Formats: sequence, C-alpha cells, structure tokens
Amino acid sequence: MPELPDKRTAFMDWYLAVVDGAGVTDKRYPVKGMNVWTPYGFRARRNLDAVLVREIEATGSEAVEFPTLIPATEFEKEKEHIKGFDAQVYWVTRGGLSELDIPLVLRPTSETAIYPIFSVWIRSHRDLPLNVYQIVNTFRYETKTTRPFLRVREIHFFEEHTCQANEAHATERVRSNLGAFRKMADAFALPFLPVRRPEWDKFPGAYYTIALDAPIGEARTLQLGSIHHYRENFARPYGIRYEAADGSQQYVHQTTFGLSERLLGAILAVHGDAKGAVFPTAIAPYQVVVIPIPGPDAGDGPLRTAEEIAGRLARHGLRVHLDAGDERPGAKYYRWEQAGVPLRLEVGRREAESRTATSASRLGAKGRVTIDRLEHEVAERLAEFDRALAERAAAGFAAAFSLAGSIAELAGSTTVRVVAWCGSEACGHQIEAGIDGALLGVPEGPLPIEVGSPGACVACGSTTAVRWALAGRPL
Amino acid sequence: MPELPDKRTAFMDWYLAVVDGAGVTDKRYPVKGMNVWTPYGFRARRNLDAVLVREIEATGSEAVEFPTLIPATEFEKEKEHIKGFDAQVYWVTRGGLSELDIPLVLRPTSETAIYPIFSVWIRSHRDLPLNVYQIVNTFRYETKTTRPFLRVREIHFFEEHTCQANEAHATERVRSNLGAFRKMADAFALPFLPVRRPEWDKFPGAYYTIALDAPIGEARTLQLGSIHHYRENFARPYGIRYEAADGSQQYVHQTTFGLSERLLGAILAVHGDAKGAVFPTAIAPYQVVVIPIPGPDAGDGPLRTAEEIAGRLARHGLRVHLDAGDERPGAKYYRWEQAGVPLRLEVGRREAESRTATSASRLGAKGRVTIDRLEHEVAERLAEFDRALAERAAAGFAAAFSLAGSIAELAGSTTVRVVAWCGSEACGHQIEAGIDGALLGVPEGPLPIEVGSPGACVACGSTTAVRWALAGRPL
Repeated sequence: MPELPDKRTAFMDWYLAVVDGAGVTDKRYPVKGMNVWTPYGFRARRNLDAVLVREIEATGSEAVEFPTLIPATEFEKEKEHIKGFDAQVYWVTRGGLSELDIPLVLRPTSETAIYPIFSVWIRSHRDLPLNVYQIVNTFRYETKTTRPFLRVREIHFFEEHTCQANEAHATERVRSNLGAFRKMADAFALPFLPVRRPEWDKFPGAYYTIALDAPIGEARTLQLGSIHHYRENFARPYGIRYEAADGSQQYVHQTTFGLSERLLGAILAVHGDAKGAVFPTAIAPYQVVVIPIPGPDAGDGPLRTAEEIAGRLARHGLRVHLDAGDERPGAKYYRWEQAGVPLRLEVGRREAESRTATSASRLGAKGRVTIDRLEHEVAERLAEFDRALAERAAAGFAAAFSLAGSIAELAGSTTVRVVAWCGSEACGHQIEAGIDGALLGVPEGPLPIEVGSPGACVACGSTTAVRWALAGRPL
Repeated sequence: MPELPDKRTAFMDWYLAVVDGAGVTDKRYPVKGMNVWTPYGFRARRNLDAVLVREIEATGSEAVEFPTLIPATEFEKEKEHIKGFDAQVYWVTRGGLSELDIPLVLRPTSETAIYPIFSVWIRSHRDLPLNVYQIVNTFRYETKTTRPFLRVREIHFFEEHTCQANEAHATERVRSNLGAFRKMADAFALPFLPVRRPEWDKFPGAYYTIALDAPIGEARTLQLGSIHHYRENFARPYGIRYEAADGSQQYVHQTTFGLSERLLGAILAVHGDAKGAVFPTAIAPYQVVVIPIPGPDAGDGPLRTAEEIAGRLARHGLRVHLDAGDERPGAKYYRWEQAGVPLRLEVGRREAESRTATSASRLGAKGRVTIDRLEHEVAERLAEFDRALAERAAAGFAAAFSLAGSIAELAGSTTVRVVAWCGSEACGHQIEAGIDGALLGVPEGPLPIEVGSPGACVACGSTTAVRWALAGRPL
C-alpha cells in the first residue's frame, strides 16, 4: 500500500493524497474547482453543519434562505464591496433564448442579496436585533489553483447576517459569534486564534474583520472563517433604518459571521497523519466500523456477532458501518484508516466465542470490548479517542508559534511568528516581505505563547503604540 | 380582520393570500420568481425535508451533492432532454471580467451534471444498484406567471438518481420510490394519485413518467412530483456501463424521483381554509403556541405558567413557541391561526390558578389540558388534530373525482374526470380540448372512484385497448 507524501515537507501533496484516500470528494467533475460531494463526504458535511446550526441557534439566530442570484443593480450599491468582488464573480447574462435586461450575479457572499430585504423587514427598534443565518452555496471565479475544500469555485458556505441598534450592540454580537465559534471548534478539536486583520486585509466594506486562523505547520495558516463588524457601511447604501424609542430614524449596525467548507479542509489538514484522514467523532461519517473476520473454522459466528454489534450501536444512536464485504481484513483496515474512522471493532472466531471484539482506535490504541457492556465501553473508547485527538492537536498548536525579534529572523520561518509592530501599513508590508507571507494581524485575547510586553516595532523601531502581531504564510 | 377570498371560486387569490398571511415567504426580492425563505418558512421546509430524507434513506439511498453549474458540452448530450429544457435555462457566460470558453448552465435538473460522474463510478455489477439523492436548488427561466412554491425560478428540489442492472430492477426501483412517497404523503396528510403520463407529456428523455398528482378542487390538479424510468436513454449518451457477472459490458437502466418546494405549496393549498394555512404536525414550524393572557388582577401567574408549559413541551421534543408579546390575545389568535399552528394553549388567571390551559385546535376543537398531565394530553390533542386533518383531506379527495361518459360532459368540469380512453394521442388531445385542460394519464393502481370496466373510448368510440384515464386542469 502506497505511502503518503510527508506532511511536513510536502504538505499540499500530502493533503491532496489524504483527501483522495478518504473518499470525501470527487474532483473529476468537468468544471475546475467544482467538486462532487460523495456519499461519505456528504455525511461529514452534514454532521459538521449540524454542529454549526446547534451553536448558532443557541445564540438566538434563525435560519433563512435568500436567492442565489443577485441583480447587478443591487450588487453594485456598496462601492468597496463591489471593488473587492468584481474580478471573481460569475455572471448570468442569458435566460432561455434571450439576453437578460439586468445581468445577475451568482452570489459570492450574500450582503447584497439580503440587505435590500432587511430594509423592508426592519421598521422599529422592536425589530432589533435581527439575527439570521443561511447555509448555502456561493460562487467565486477563482483564478488561483483550486484545492478541494480549501479553494473552490462553488463553496458550501455558512453566513450569519445581523442588524443591531448601535455600534456597541454590534460589537457584542461579534463577541457572541466568537463564543459560538469556540464551541464549534471544540467539537472539531480544532485549535485556532482569533486575529484582527490589518486594515489592508479586511473584508471589502467592513469596519473591521476578525479572522479565525489555524496554524497548520511550517508557518502556514488557514483562515477557518471570519467575523465582521460593518458599522453603518452597508446600512447606508441599502437604507436599513429603524425608528428608535425616541422617534428618531437611525441606521442599524451590522455584523456578519462566515464559515465555509474550508472548515472540513482544516479538519483534514490538522488531524490527518501519515495514515490518512482522522475525523473527530462529532463529524465522523462513521464513528465505528465493524469488521467480521472469517476464518477456516470460524463459521458464521464472526458475521453474526458483528451484525449484533453494529445493530446495537446504531440503535444506541452511533453512526456505525458494518463492512462485511469480501475483501481481506487488512485491506479493510487500510481503507477505514485512510477514511479516518475513529474506532474499528474486529470480530474473529476467538472474539465471537468469548463475546468480545478487538478494538483499534484510529490513533493507535488497541484493546478489547465486552459485548455485554458494548454501548458503555464503545462510548468510553470514543471519548478516549476524542481526548487524544484534542491533545495531539493542542500540542501541534503550541509548537506552531514562536517569537521573532527582528525582520531578519523572519526569513525561512517554520512557525507562525509573533512580532512587535507599530501598527503602520508600511511596517506591516516590511514584515510581510520578511516572512514572504502576510501580517495576519493582532490576536484578540491572549497570545499563543508567553511573551512580555512588546518593545520596539521590528520594522521601524518605534516604541509608540506597539502591539504583538502575527506573521505567517496563509494557504 | 380582512376575510380571505373564497377558496373554491377564487382559488389563486385565496392561495396567494394564505401564503402571505402565513409569513412563509417574502416575494419582494428584486428578481421575479425568486423568493426569500423567511425564518418561519424555512422551519417548515426543514421539517418537510427531514421527512423526505427519512423515507428515502430507509430505502437505501445516500445523500450526495453535485455542482450547480453544468458545462454546455455535457448539457447537450441527450437530445430529447436538451430540447425539453433549452428555452428555460439560465446561462452563465462570464467569469470575472472575461467570457467563459464553455458557457455554463444553472442546473434545471441534474441528469447532465451527475451522469458523467456515474460513468466513472460504475465499473462492475458489484457497484449496482447505485441509489443517491440530493436536495439542492434548481433554476428555470419561467416565462409564465410565477407563484410562490408552485411556479418559481429558483426551486428547492429533491432528486434521486439511480442506476440499476436492468429494466426489471429499474421498474422495481420505481415501485420502491412510489412506496416511499406514500409514506411521505402520509406524513403530510396529502392524498394523491400516481398517474402514468401519456407519451406526449412525459419527462424529456424518459421511457415513462409516473406523476404524483393531487386534486385541489374545481378539476384542478397539482403535480407533487414524479418518478421516471429512463431505461438506457441516458446511459448510452453518457456511457454508463458495467461489467456483468458473465464478463459482458452492459448499459445500466436508470430511474429518477423528483420532488420540489411545490410539496409545501400543495400542503398550503390542500389543507388551508377560510382562516389561512394549516400545517400537519410533521412539518408545522411550531406545533404548539402558548399564549399567556394578562388581566387586571392576573399578576404574573399566566406568564409564569405559560413559560412552564412552553419549557416542558420543548424539553419533551415538541416545537413550541411562547408568544408573550404585548399585543391583544385576539390579535395573537388571529396571527397563529393564519400561520397554521396546529394547537394553541391559552393561560389566563383562572387557568394559572387551576393548573390548566385552554386548548384550541387549528381545526376548531376546544378543550382544556391539565398541567400535571401536560405532555401526555398535548400529544393526544396533536394526534387528534392530525387525524381530523387527514379526514378532511381524504373527504376532499373523494369528492374531487367523477365519471364522464362523453366528451360533451367534460365541458365546465368541477371535478377531475375519469374517462375511457383508447390510448391514442389524437383521442387524448380531443379529451384535453373537451375539458380545456390535460389528459393526466392512466392511474397506477386503483381508481379513486368505483367504476366498472371501461367501455368505448369517449373520443373515437373504439372498444380496443380501452383503459380508464384522468382528465383535469393542471395548475
């Protein structure tokens, strides 16, 4: 069985091999960057979405769905926004056999689809806050090389859009989103850092952007999602106003919170290893695979016991797959390891006779479960697996950052660097040149490593308004 | 409070008023026929989809998702199919600032997106059957008047696509789909009739089409969905072949099963009444609404009791909404009746003191529930409501059909007509002219009314190969 490329030294080759081996997507669709969600991949996506829905609804957001197509006239209302997306939208120009009077854009994101309707939904302060989200597909005409889940042209997308009475309430919603994302990331065992992007890298039209960044080795980072504060930047062009308690007309302050299928890419990238994918139990398409092992004198004991195990675990609410196909057991082990199934149970003659199963965690722990206490023991093994997975990810996270005391030190970085920065754009660009990457921005909350107070900016040496910032190489 | 138009004599005005009053969609989006799913409407859709998923997965189908955009080159491979859709597809011709080399079609349905990939997924008889479905949005450039849920340009769509080893297995899949749809329709209390469409009205590219038709009064019918047998019609142009057990190469036989948001329209159309929408509990966004009734000496007893009731029912797994707003109770009753909530519980001072609530079913039954036995009694009331709703719908269905012994009798029909038909297209068109509608086709299975054997064709008088057919006015 072929070995995977090395994750550290040949990350993208490794990633592509892991994605292929896991069977989560099919890239052979005849449009570049538009991939097929296979049955196995769709299961992962459905489980992942369920976590997003649970956590965002717990914060009082309601699901909606707005149309996919946006009239050019609406799309072009906010100037910064349209500048940011102009070069990467798909245009529908023809309907049936005739040209459309007003061309339509396939949404790259839905501000310009949603806000004309917000302006009719919101009349009074009683209509606020308005917190809604949708899980839809968005489209970007990517000119860079596409990568499954990480950079695609049709994107499975989560977007919350909210309207608040004032700037402070919008700031509060940003915090609430960050809290919700912490819970989502916990479910995926995905360590991340919220980072306030520099001005030149914020979302087109935003007042500020907090990106959710995960280090994935060798100074590389993945932006898992982002939370934006828009102030009144969209409310003004779209006329989203309300009558305040004092009778005055006020513009709303808006926020958005965006996540995408890139989260699934991040889960594959962060947790995967030399054997392939590893899914946390929260999103694993199958949490347990049960494999009967026929033998010369085994009879049908292994198969019947495996069926019993699979049936009981399914009734217990677990996602379980019985692999009773006629391949060799070794080939099955290999396949389900590549596919990232947390727990494998094997049942041979010996196990069937002793009413046990041999257990193998995807992270290597071996053991035995007693069928009498099956549900309980499997739950324990899965919890152990999740703990071990979270520990491994946390260790990787802790090792992914280091201090850089000068621009020179940034060259050839193999970790994301913590640098002192004065906040100026010119110095930011010097830092970016130094690491041959990006100034990611200033972390919200604690830094990932222990450092003192920042001294002088690594670029200009100024000691005024210096803060710690992160520099890395976004994928 | 304004009265609704009369359902019988002004059906479409009534329907549009019911949809508006229920608050399930917003038609003010600036593209005609592309509507917004409101929070309330999205809840109904989510519940409806959950029923479809449950029933189709019970028959061994797995969820997938294929891209939204189809290259013109793939779209044009099956000649009948493309002829059927040519005039109603949206074309993406531009990406970013440049023209696309190959224009892309926004899927009107996904045969031509999926089948190129089926041709690489399927190699051997071991890969069969392949049963997959997706729930996605599709797009049709409708030139007729659009109507929420019934005829829209962006369509929330369910489509199963299967590959079978031979024609008989495909026929078996058609039967299985019909069985699954019976269970779905049962959950929605929606009576229907499977009807084999005449040749001239089958799906473009199909061998035959079984439509799922519901009568909605005054000879009108709604096609809720359809099941198609494709034989090898798509397998040949897309090259979907497998190696049979005997080593020969065979084309697969394919089937599809399609449903859309029109199902939600049908639920509104069939169950709605003079007070507005009525949702069966399986898809009701809220199954129960709890309304505290403040009074001069009521104190906070009603509100606290209403909160207790809502909390307990939610923990019990019901979808419950506490309406504690400051409107008059009468205005709330009116609103939630329009919105089709199955059960209303009212708590005033008297109820709070006696640990009871007054219950009002959306279909009119009044009563009282004891808070001690809340969960049990509410479950009973909801079951009663579903039974009464199903009975009302069944009575409407039974009254919706009648026999027509001649072409002349078809004029001015106020029911769907059962007619004797020889099967010829010319006679079919005479019947269509007679009823000023369509020959719906030949029912699969029992007729909706008791009739003997068909005698002579109502059009040509032939007594050869005569069968019972249905004629009506599809909406």
